Amino acid sequence: MKKILVIHGPNLNLLGDREIDVYGKVTLTQINSSLKRLAQKKKIQLKIIQSNHEGKIVEVIGETKGKFSAILINPAAYTHTSVAIRDAISAVPVPCVEVHLSNIYQREEFRHTSLIAPVAKGQVCGFGLMSYVLGLEAAISLIKNKK
Amino acid sequence: MKKILVIHGPNLNLLGDREIDVYGKVTLTQINSSLKRLAQKKKIQLKIIQSNHEGKIVEVIGETKGKFSAILINPAAYTHTSVAIRDAISAVPVPCVEVHLSNIYQREEFRHTSLIAPVAKGQVCGFGLMSYVLGLEAAISLIKNKK
Amino acid sequence: MKKILVIHGPNLNLLGDREIDVYGKVTLTQINSSLKRLAQKKKIQLKIIQSNHEGKIVEVIGETKGKFSAILINPAAYTHTSVAIRDAISAVPVPCVEVHLSNIYQREEFRHTSLIAPVAKGQVCGFGLMSYVLGLEAAISLIKNKK
Amino acid sequence: MKKILVIHGPNLNLLGDREIDVYGKVTLTQINSSLKRLAQKKKIQLKIIQSNHEGKIVEVIGETKGKFSAILINPAAYTHTSVAIRDAISAVPVPCVEVHLSNIYQREEFRHTSLIAPVAKGQVCGFGLMSYVLGLEAAISLIKNKK
Amino acid sequence: MKKILVIHGPNLNLLGDREIDVYGKVTLTQINSSLKRLAQKKKIQLKIIQSNHEGKIVEVIGETKGKFSAILINPAAYTHTSVAIRDAISAVPVPCVEVHLSNIYQREEFRHTSLIAPVAKGQVCGFGLMSYVLGLEAAISLIKNKK
Amino acid sequence: MKKILVIHGPNLNLLGDREIDVYGKVTLTQINSSLKRLAQKKKIQLKIIQSNHEGKIVEVIGETKGKFSAILINPAAYTHTSVAIRDAISAVPVPCVEVHLSNIYQREEFRHTSLIAPVAKGQVCGFGLMSYVLGLEAAISLIKNKK
Amino acid sequence: MKKILVIHGPNLNLLGDREIDVYGKVTLTQINSSLKRLAQKKKIQLKIIQSNHEGKIVEVIGETKGKFSAILINPAAYTHTSVAIRDAISAVPVPCVEVHLSNIYQREEFRHTSLIAPVAKGQVCGFGLMSYVLGLEAAISLIKNKK
Amino acid sequence: MKKILVIHGPNLNLLGDREIDVYGKVTLTQINSSLKRLAQKKKIQLKIIQSNHEGKIVEVIGETKGKFSAILINPAAYTHTSVAIRDAISAVPVPCVEVHLSNIYQREEFRHTSLIAPVAKGQVCGFGLMSYVLGLEAAISLIKNKK
Amino acid sequence: MKKILVIHGPNLNLLGDREIDVYGKVTLTQINSSLKRLAQKKKIQLKIIQSNHEGKIVEVIGETKGKFSAILINPAAYTHTSVAIRDAISAVPVPCVEVHLSNIYQREEFRHTSLIAPVAKGQVCGFGLMSYVLGLEAAISLIKNKK
Amino acid sequence: MKKILVIHGPNLNLLGDREIDVYGKVTLTQINSSLKRLAQKKKIQLKIIQSNHEGKIVEVIGETKGKFSAILINPAAYTHTSVAIRDAISAVPVPCVEVHLSNIYQREEFRHTSLIAPVAKGQVCGFGLMSYVLGLEAAISLIKNKK
Amino acid sequence: MKKILVIHGPNLNLLGDREIDVYGKVTLTQINSSLKRLAQKKKIQLKIIQSNHEGKIVEVIGETKGKFSAILINPAAYTHTSVAIRDAISAVPVPCVEVHLSNIYQREEFRHTSLIAPVAKGQVCGFGLMSYVLGLEAAISLIKNKK
Amino acid sequence: MKKILVIHGPNLNLLGDREIDVYGKVTLTQINSSLKRLAQKKKIQLKIIQSNHEGKIVEVIGETKGKFSAILINPAAYTHTSVAIRDAISAVPVPCVEVHLSNIYQREEFRHTSLIAPVAKGQVCGFGLMSYVLGLEAAISLIKNKK
Repeated sequence: MKKILVIHGPNLNLLGDREIDVYGKVTLTQINSSLKRLAQKKKIQLKIIQSNHEGKIVEVIGETKGKFSAILINPAAYTHTSVAIRDAISAVPVPCVEVHLSNIYQREEFRHTSLIAPVAKGQVCGFGLMSYVLGLEAAISLIKNKK
Repeated sequence: MKKILVIHGPNLNLLGDREIDVYGKVTLTQINSSLKRLAQKKKIQLKIIQSNHEGKIVEVIGETKGKFSAILINPAAYTHTSVAIRDAISAVPVPCVEVHLSNIYQREEFRHTSLIAPVAKGQVCGFGLMSYVLGLEAAISLIKNKK
Repeated sequence: MKKILVIHGPNLNLLGDREIDVYGKVTLTQINSSLKRLAQKKKIQLKIIQSNHEGKIVEVIGETKGKFSAILINPAAYTHTSVAIRDAISAVPVPCVEVHLSNIYQREEFRHTSLIAPVAKGQVCGFGLMSYVLGLEAAISLIKNKK
Repeated sequence: MKKILVIHGPNLNLLGDREIDVYGKVTLTQINSSLKRLAQKKKIQLKIIQSNHEGKIVEVIGETKGKFSAILINPAAYTHTSVAIRDAISAVPVPCVEVHLSNIYQREEFRHTSLIAPVAKGQVCGFGLMSYVLGLEAAISLIKNKK
Repeated sequence: MKKILVIHGPNLNLLGDREIDVYGKVTLTQINSSLKRLAQKKKIQLKIIQSNHEGKIVEVIGETKGKFSAILINPAAYTHTSVAIRDAISAVPVPCVEVHLSNIYQREEFRHTSLIAPVAKGQVCGFGLMSYVLGLEAAISLIKNKK
Repeated sequence: MKKILVIHGPNLNLLGDREIDVYGKVTLTQINSSLKRLAQKKKIQLKIIQSNHEGKIVEVIGETKGKFSAILINPAAYTHTSVAIRDAISAVPVPCVEVHLSNIYQREEFRHTSLIAPVAKGQVCGFGLMSYVLGLEAAISLIKNKK
Repeated sequence: MKKILVIHGPNLNLLGDREIDVYGKVTLTQINSSLKRLAQKKKIQLKIIQSNHEGKIVEVIGETKGKFSAILINPAAYTHTSVAIRDAISAVPVPCVEVHLSNIYQREEFRHTSLIAPVAKGQVCGFGLMSYVLGLEAAISLIKNKK
Repeated sequence: MKKILVIHGPNLNLLGDREIDVYGKVTLTQINSSLKRLAQKKKIQLKIIQSNHEGKIVEVIGETKGKFSAILINPAAYTHTSVAIRDAISAVPVPCVEVHLSNIYQREEFRHTSLIAPVAKGQVCGFGLMSYVLGLEAAISLIKNKK
Repeated sequence: MKKILVIHGPNLNLLGDREIDVYGKVTLTQINSSLKRLAQKKKIQLKIIQSNHEGKIVEVIGETKGKFSAILINPAAYTHTSVAIRDAISAVPVPCVEVHLSNIYQREEFRHTSLIAPVAKGQVCGFGLMSYVLGLEAAISLIKNKK
Repeated sequence: MKKILVIHGPNLNLLGDREIDVYGKVTLTQINSSLKRLAQKKKIQLKIIQSNHEGKIVEVIGETKGKFSAILINPAAYTHTSVAIRDAISAVPVPCVEVHLSNIYQREEFRHTSLIAPVAKGQVCGFGLMSYVLGLEAAISLIKNKK
Repeated sequence: MKKILVIHGPNLNLLGDREIDVYGKVTLTQINSSLKRLAQKKKIQLKIIQSNHEGKIVEVIGETKGKFSAILINPAAYTHTSVAIRDAISAVPVPCVEVHLSNIYQREEFRHTSLIAPVAKGQVCGFGLMSYVLGLEAAISLIKNKK
Repeated sequence: MKKILVIHGPNLNLLGDREIDVYGKVTLTQINSSLKRLAQKKKIQLKIIQSNHEGKIVEVIGETKGKFSAILINPAAYTHTSVAIRDAISAVPVPCVEVHLSNIYQREEFRHTSLIAPVAKGQVCGFGLMSYVLGLEAAISLIKNKK
């Protein structure tokens, strides 16, 4: 059974409570439930982590080789500042899908540039919880096409 | 039965033949088949058009009000140059999903900025044919959430 | 009797319905009525067209020479992107007045620069329907001063 | 009887004599006569001042509240440098019309940006004396629409 | 017999009449005659079109594959704004030569950058009618070298 | 008894009345009362002036040497444009504290840069009336540390 | 009794020892003593932490809701690079005061921009230990005004 | 006897006392004496003024026409910000020489650009008192060449 | 018999050997042969030089007046850095044609700007040896048109 | 015996496996062996750490004072984003040598700027494993020169 | 007897003939005569050279130490491109005066920045031949003040 | 026996005497002695040249093919301005090592960018004489790895 690593970046533990006009009322638990339901249906195993630490995220990505078939990541604030996470994604031969709850192109100028996008396979943003679900579908389809 | 307007922008009629290293071998006909199959399953009606004319695309968007529940658009080259299409999308009360076959953030600098993204609900890019399929799923889910 | 060509750019057919907080409730028909009333009073003949096509606008400007004494244009979205319309205005010996319903300097950054302004005689913006009326007065006064 | 404050910015006292290729031969006295004639016809009272002092212009704007129904200003050189005049216009609840004799978009780069435009209702430029006349018409129409 | 497609962009129908200090007195008919004379001598067939429509130009380029051996294009104003024409040229396996009547590097800043140049084989500019003639020679030599 | 010069820049005479959503309802008289109360307690003498004239402010700063032990200034709009006030502060050996009622970093782009900050000892902003009170405390502590 | 969270960012543990010409000789212990003395007088409880870890600071801010009435933070080097801390401050409904020992506007170019300032209530900088004391006074006054 | 107007800009009244490492110990009185001595020798009459008011300087320049044969100006801080002084110099048909005590190209970035230089005949900077003396010689030679 | 000066800039002596993917296998000797053959046919005399020294190139251009009817130059690396060569071309009344072997607009960013283009009559680039041949034809046609 | 601290930044644990075209096949273990061999020969003691955590790297640098005579660091991705590491290096009186395996000036634009370089003694880059060896030699020579 | 080295940069040998609207009709011989006349009067010895070679100019500056008391240089085109000449001037302990015939601030953008100005004592520009004469006076006065 | 070409760029002949705070007291003779000593030990032959002429440096590099196994260059001022030297290095199949005495990243902004770095194998800077020694070691190791 194939495994996908799901990474939630900094502050996402506060979802449902935080800036509801931007992120909506959905909580991280609800997102994870939706992802697990889809994974089960598609016979994919998920490992889900949330971390506020850039170094931690670098580490878990660095250890995906040979263990995971794809990465699904919402890098949150690190999207715009972390060359280290970008390098980690480049360093491992595991395809990566980038997702965002909000449409980052409708927000502050500095959120319009993603350091992660050029090393990800693709990006889904702006659909709230659905961004994650569609991102997971994309990741699964990437695995299937590879076979 | 709800209707969604699918718009393919300039040069997409050449798909399958054109810069295969960037866009893959998929043809527009194959994309349209996939979209129709999904639409049928979800009981949604599709109208699909392809145009190389900015003015034509502005026009069909301007006429969606009251006729379509959502727009799925791959603005192709006009993504980066058309304020007119952007204004048309803003002008009509119909939610719009933007898709791209390639990961525009891995290409030339001038393709990193989308004039359409800030007025679309969200964006899916980088997954080839799957970008369209996931985009259509997103559009359908936007319609359902509205009800 | 002198003739003035009035050109309404892309999406202006949607006026009255579209983004009312920006453009107000006035419709294109109401604008045209106001312009015709003033023209009649000043004994000027008007020809009015609306087009979403950049190429079409280029063409009608290219044919004004010897037929029209002035051009009154609201280039709308093409204000910021069309070098072709700018070149057409430069190419014909007919004075051109640029008008905008909204104050473009209060909107998004990319709307602050007009490619048309440097080749127009002058600009009127921010007064809604009155922008057109004052613009037509300016065009008429340009014709009279030439005599 | 409604009152409108007309403000001529720095160096405009030199008109008719100064850089005739840019500003034409019209004098400030001729401009003021045209404005008074129109005001009389429209039953509006004008107060006209010219000042080279940024602080003086800030002051007269600051005192318009409750005394004037609109401001007509040609900020001249202060158009491009005066945050203080901009703040004064924002600070009073009196609509303001910005006018320029020349087409500022055909001149030096630093004259293409107006600090005043984003806080004015609208702008008229490029028509010489007619810029003032049309600007006054715009101001009068703003007052009338408010009633 | 090999065929070359010659494309004249927007406003070039006005040549001979338009901004003579920039473009000289040569007319489009004279340019076409010179091109045909050279083609005849070199035993090449020409198809010549002029269009003000970006979408039209995209279309004719999109249909060159298998029908034409080279493209000779003066994109005029679209040189600086059309990603769609650029994408069309990239999409077809037909070598393209870009020409300009005037020396675009002596004109306004925004004319110094060509979106077409990076996808063309080469560029000839600044020699008026001779730009076209030399451009056609270049196109013919590209065809011959390929054989 | 030590003396501190308090300078209120342009438009601050309008406080309490002007853009209440930005500056709150506090008046200049209330600010001055708070400052005087604190000064009395700390046995410091204050001289307070308000001016809309850049030149006037330059002058009063130029005359502080030997008469005042510190300057407390809210340069308001001149914060962003006055090299002359900056030079005046550099020219006199009197420490200067810069204060702002609003958080200038939450406002328009052009308010994010202070020409005064690099020549002031420090800055307090964003706390309304409290900005002045804390700024005066800072100024007093600067004087005491010098002794 | 109200509680305020005091956060010292990276490298501040080295104070008193580090670049004395920039930061002075004051130690973190001395700063904390001054803060505690003032807090006691004002009947406020303080929790003080120092961390070199961006992720740790993000975490403690994320947990302030319902436990603390205000945050006093010297983000040090993270001021200029941490979108994650910025997002954490936005995410919690607790007012935040930003302080700096040195005048960041007199230092290297890249220190002139604070990512934190736009989401803080206000900022105090340049007064050494006094920056903290005044910042705490500001924080206390923010709490009192809310009551 | 020809007359030259000498204008000393803001803060120059503080010379000899102010930032001695930048401007040296020379006082305005000493500069004026040197200028008068040279003028007497060359049989030129001088009028010398110093003002901290931008508006005042605009005014005296505006009144030079027909009264003065040349202007010698050290615009000091207004060098970098005053479009109004620039416009005044352009507006009068009197040649203008710009001088600076210090070498402005060795100082802060914002002092490297002079708004005055493009409308002055020439510039002398970096030689302290000698900048004024050489500037006056230049002004006299401009007058003589015109005769 | 008319004479044309042909200048090959720095490193062109290495052609045929150097970066073959960029410049092809053609050698300088082959280019010169082609040029001489064309010159002979057109009854034009050529003088050909190659130099790695900017100063040398400046000198030979400075001596063309009265001796040569046109200059054909491939400034190579100096295209992007030499204001001195640009000034030399401006200084002599001899028309100049700029050529490049490669399409400079497909290479590094800093090669997209030519300091020479604004002072040349026109430019030919991207056609390898043919760039030179077409450039010489252009130069000859410039001489003929002048007669 | 003198001690040198060697720091390997984020993702360097993946060496030998990661992007072999950029970094080569050398592993971290091989690099460390080479360094230890040289250190032994030069009678220097090494402490070597690798961390993906910015905060951890800040901490170990903060503790070098009095314990280490020099630092040898490959900051990897943090080279371009970490003001905190930069500040840590500035804060301790221990000379620091920066090394990179790859030539960072041949890679993406954002890798051309090092935040570390201005506070390091010097930099060695582009020589793979040899960068480390030469960097260690440089560090040793810095220690010897100090004695 | 003190000696001053006068350096004329590239293309200045063409003066009197070259772009007369920019540089006037004065020749290099006339400039040199004026300089020699003044030098004789002031009992200063001159050595005058003109070179088109950057390397040559670097060399003569490098040899001035101990032989010349000052340098008078018109770097012409190298003003804007030569870091090598700048470094040579910094490297020798001989004061340097920079002169320009034309007002470089009225010309193309790239001529507004001088790499030489920050290392020269001062600059004189815009007065044609008089720029040299005043520059020599400045150089002589620098020598005298040093004594 | 392998040969390495050592090139010292402009002004380096002045070392030991020139700006000692930047470059130290080491002379070019001492550097050359150190290099020769190392070369002898490693059984490598050196050819050393110093030139102030860009064209000369281009020439010697152009002639290295087949004669030298590596180039060691300190391009000095030409580091930042010479595309010609960059092209010469690209044109020959000889690996090149770039060295700098000073840490160019601690100096003026325009010295932070090296045109040479992207075509060199690697760079060593900031260690004075040691930069050369380490650079030579790097060059030797490049030769050895190639064998």
